Amino acid sequence: MNVPTVRTAFFVSDGTGITAETLGHSLLTQFEGVKLRQVRMPFTNTAEKVRECAARISQAAREDGLRPVVFSTLVEPDLNAILRQADALYLSFFETFIAPLEAELGLKSTHTIGRFHSSTDSNSYKDRIEAINYTLGHDDGITNKGLEEADVILVGVSRCGKTPTSLYLAMQFGLKAANYPLIPEDFERRALPEGLDKHRQKLFGLTIQPDRLQAIRTERRPNSRYAALENCRHEVAEAEKLMRKEGIRWLDSSTKSIEEISTTIMQEIKLERSSY
Amino acid sequence: MNVPTVRTAFFVSDGTGITAETLGHSLLTQFEGVKLRQVRMPFTNTAEKVRECAARISQAAREDGLRPVVFSTLVEPDLNAILRQADALYLSFFETFIAPLEAELGLKSTHTIGRFHSSTDSNSYKDRIEAINYTLGHDDGITNKGLEEADVILVGVSRCGKTPTSLYLAMQFGLKAANYPLIPEDFERRALPEGLDKHRQKLFGLTIQPDRLQAIRTERRPNSRYAALENCRHEVAEAEKLMRKEGIRWLDSSTKSIEEISTTIMQEIKLERSSY
Repeated sequence: MNVPTVRTAFFVSDGTGITAETLGHSLLTQFEGVKLRQVRMPFTNTAEKVRECAARISQAAREDGLRPVVFSTLVEPDLNAILRQADALYLSFFETFIAPLEAELGLKSTHTIGRFHSSTDSNSYKDRIEAINYTLGHDDGITNKGLEEADVILVGVSRCGKTPTSLYLAMQFGLKAANYPLIPEDFERRALPEGLDKHRQKLFGLTIQPDRLQAIRTERRPNSRYAALENCRHEVAEAEKLMRKEGIRWLDSSTKSIEEISTTIMQEIKLERSSY
Repeated sequence: MNVPTVRTAFFVSDGTGITAETLGHSLLTQFEGVKLRQVRMPFTNTAEKVRECAARISQAAREDGLRPVVFSTLVEPDLNAILRQADALYLSFFETFIAPLEAELGLKSTHTIGRFHSSTDSNSYKDRIEAINYTLGHDDGITNKGLEEADVILVGVSRCGKTPTSLYLAMQFGLKAANYPLIPEDFERRALPEGLDKHRQKLFGLTIQPDRLQAIRTERRPNSRYAALENCRHEVAEAEKLMRKEGIRWLDSSTKSIEEISTTIMQEIKLERSSY
C-alpha cells in the first residue's frame, strides 16, 4: 500500500534561487513538524528549462500523491505562465508584489533576470570583497594595525562566536569586522588587548554561558584545562568583569543565531550596511 | 520650494530583518534608477515597537512627500494590522503566502516569531559553525590534511575569488569548502598541488579574465610582477591548460557574484546544502 507521507517543495529561480529559498524556508518554519523534500532549481531562465522544471514538479505530484509547493522568483511573465501549469501550489513572489510596486512607484519594472552583479554595483561588490579580506586579516587578534578602518571590533573569550559573526557581518553587510580574544593575560592585567583602547566606540563584546562554552571547547580539545567547566566559568566571569569595567556593551551568544547576533550588534552600535 | 525626490523603503521584521531585506532588494532591483532611502527595523516584535515603527513610517511619508514602501515579514496578524495603518504601500510576505500554504498543507501555521535558531535545529547550527571553521582551516592551501571531509575543493590562480566563494558556501549552505591556489610551481610540474589528485570528483576550478585579475592584484601589490597584465595572462592561460589536462570543471568568475559562483558550483558538482 502506498501511503503518501512526504511532499516536495521546489525553489525555482531564474537566478541563484537564494531569494526563493530564503522566502520558502521562512514560510515553512511556520509549520511545525512538516517535513518537505526540498529541491532547488536555480538558473531556470529559458522556456525550455521552465518546461523541464514543470514536468519535474508534476512528476513529484504523481510520485508523492500530494501536490508539491513551489516557491518561485521567476521574473518573466511568460516563464511564470508556463510554470503555473504544473500540478502544484504555485507561490510566485514577483508576480504577487511587482504590480503594486509598479503602481506605487509609477514605473514599469524592467523584468530583468539576475541583477545581482550588474555593472552598476561593481563598486559596492568590490567593497564587499574588501570587507571579507579585511575581516580575515583581522581575525583572532592577528594584528592591531589598521583598526581605524574597522567598522566594528568584537571581543570575547576564545570560542564564543567572534569569527563566524565577523565573517557574517562582512559577507552579508559589507562591514569590516576585526575581532580579538580576551585571554588570561588580559584578565591579569585587567586591561583590554593593546591598541583597542582608542577604538572604544567600535568595541562590542560577546559572552556565552559557561556550559555551552565547555561543550564547544571540548570538541576542539577534549579533557583539556582549556575546556574544563571550571576554567570556562572563570574566563567568562573575568571577561564580563573586564567588559563591565571598560564600559563595553555585550550580548550573550549562547542561544542566538549568527544572523541574530550580527543584526543586534549593528543595531546597538548603529551600523548601517555598506552600500552594496 | 520643497521638491520631493527621494522615497523611503522600510524593511520591518520581528526577527533579524534579513529575509525582509533580501526580498525587498530583489524587488527593488527590478526598478531601474529608483533610489530609495533604506531603513531596517529588526526585532519589531511587540505592539509598542510596531506602533513606534508605524509612526516613523508615517513621518517619512510626510517628510518625503511620497508614501514609503514597507516590506514586512511580521508574522503575527495583530502586529500586521497595526503596521498596515501607517501611511505606506504595505507589502506583507507572511500574510500573503501563509493562507494558501495553510490551505494546501491542511495545517494552521504556528505564527512563531524568529525561529532561526530553535532547539530543534541546534545540531544543524553546529554543522554550520563546523563548516565555517573547516573552511577557514583549509583556506589557500594551508594544509592538505582532512580533505576527505571536504564537500568541495576549489582551485585557481591567486585572487580569482576562491576564498570569498569558499566562505559563502560554508556560511550560507553549511558546506565544507577547501581551496588551493594554482601557482607557477604547479604549472612547471604540470600537475595539481600535492594531495588533490585522489579527490578529483570534488575539485572545481575558478578562472578569471586577465585584465580583471590585473586590476584586483594591482590593489594588493601595485607595480609588481605579480600584478602585471602579462603575468596575469600567463598564469590564467597556464591554469586553464592544467585544469583542461586534468579534466577539472571550471567557471569564469569575472562577471559573477559570489552567490552566482557558489550556486553554479553546487549545481555542477551536485551538492545539496547541509541540513541546517
